[in-house]
Amino acid sequence: MTDHIQARDKTIKKWIHDIGQVIIKEKDSYLEVEQKTAANDLVTNMDKWVEKELVERIRTAYSKDRILGEEGFGDSVKNMEGTVWLLDPIDGTLNFVLQNENFALMLAIYEEGIPVQSYIYNVTTNELYAAIKDGGVTCNGQPVEIPANRCLNEGLLATNSSIMTKDKYDGIRKIARKSLGLRLVGSAGLETIEVAKGSIVAYIATNLKPWDIAPGILFMKELGLKATQFDNEPVDLMKNNNIIFAVPKAHKEIMDLIHE
Amino acid sequence: MTDHIQARDKTIKKWIHDIGQVIIKEKDSYLEVEQKTAANDLVTNMDKWVEKELVERIRTAYSKDRILGEEGFGDSVKNMEGTVWLLDPIDGTLNFVLQNENFALMLAIYEEGIPVQSYIYNVTTNELYAAIKDGGVTCNGQPVEIPANRCLNEGLLATNSSIMTKDKYDGIRKIARKSLGLRLVGSAGLETIEVAKGSIVAYIATNLKPWDIAPGILFMKELGLKATQFDNEPVDLMKNNNIIFAVPKAHKEIMDLIHE
Repeated sequence: MTDHIQARDKTIKKWIHDIGQVIIKEKDSYLEVEQKTAANDLVTNMDKWVEKELVERIRTAYSKDRILGEEGFGDSVKNMEGTVWLLDPIDGTLNFVLQNENFALMLAIYEEGIPVQSYIYNVTTNELYAAIKDGGVTCNGQPVEIPANRCLNEGLLATNSSIMTKDKYDGIRKIARKSLGLRLVGSAGLETIEVAKGSIVAYIATNLKPWDIAPGILFMKELGLKATQFDNEPVDLMKNNNIIFAVPKAHKEIMDLIHE
Repeated sequence: MTDHIQARDKTIKKWIHDIGQVIIKEKDSYLEVEQKTAANDLVTNMDKWVEKELVERIRTAYSKDRILGEEGFGDSVKNMEGTVWLLDPIDGTLNFVLQNENFALMLAIYEEGIPVQSYIYNVTTNELYAAIKDGGVTCNGQPVEIPANRCLNEGLLATNSSIMTKDKYDGIRKIARKSLGLRLVGSAGLETIEVAKGSIVAYIATNLKPWDIAPGILFMKELGLKATQFDNEPVDLMKNNNIIFAVPKAHKEIMDLIHE
């Protein structure tokens, strides 16, 4: 780990814990909930506060960097040149609003398009997962081991909701049938952690935004796992995308099934 | 709460905590895993030990009662006469084996066919949910409030895996589309708790066994929620069954959609 990454890692962990404490303290208070593109695409005053708080801290400490945040308080980022921070203040806002748990604060840093630091913080369980380039994955500072390389029929599979309900994704449902069973948490960040822990063999999701996907890429890389688009190409962060995070064996099977 | 139920409640809570501690202590040790009817229908030495332990304690303390347990160490129960205990030593065995979390110990008592006590213990989070006839629902002794009566399009829906992947359940997938999103934990007990907490508006599941369903019926009853078969009839515990646990508004919508 280079010095600047090590120092930044320490700073970010402090920020996340500071902000996490505010979320925990305030989460049972009155929430202002607004609809964005649809009834299941929500934003709350808390999402906005968290992103503004992060943007302000980044602008103060790392003024030359650019920021791409879900709620739009960062910059208009059209490419991955320089140092880019991707922020998802509350990943799983629907869970945050309806379940009061099962949501994550996410942050990823890319240098010239290369992922160097990723954080997924499960706020209510107080578990901070971090991936550092060439430094592996940790949970609250403890190393996360490389998960078993299992086939679909030896493991569980996660997807997002629309895959399971829309007819145009029948092919993906066929993939689900090959697995031991489906699991669905409703937060891309928490599903990413499930793959990293080996609790599921793959996460298949459609129409994810850059901030949903950005942290997972480094998590997969550091654990020797796969992160690709449906066409098996590296993930393009500059568009809404369909992705697969998986252990290698399950990933190969999924690719064969998608393209058969 | 009558005296005999109050005394039995105290006894059962002690048993569950005693056994839960053993599960937590032993769960990272070597597990003997056997397949039952299919690759995703497993039993471990831990399931068997928990059931044997419960059966032994019930036989000693309540020798006249009959026991229906998932792993077959109880009695051959063909009707609900007298006092019947239904046991699921580890509900979500697949999660227990593959995720090391997201499983529950479940126990329900029926007197002459009427549910009087139900327990769902989330072992790894140490949350013991209990429902007592005319005594409401508690989590670790704290009252659980009646959840908001929401429609499908105001809430999340849980199902089991096979509904989402098998073509014959296309109708249920249509119901899922009306909700804000799907969630899938993979344990009937934990899904029951999600309904009771108001984290989801309904749980729809097919081919559940008596011990999967038995505790949920009293949880729903005590919270003014609905527990029925797909045909809207009361749940027959003497067969494998398709069930809906839901808040009243979502239940009515599901019934209309199933029968349209």
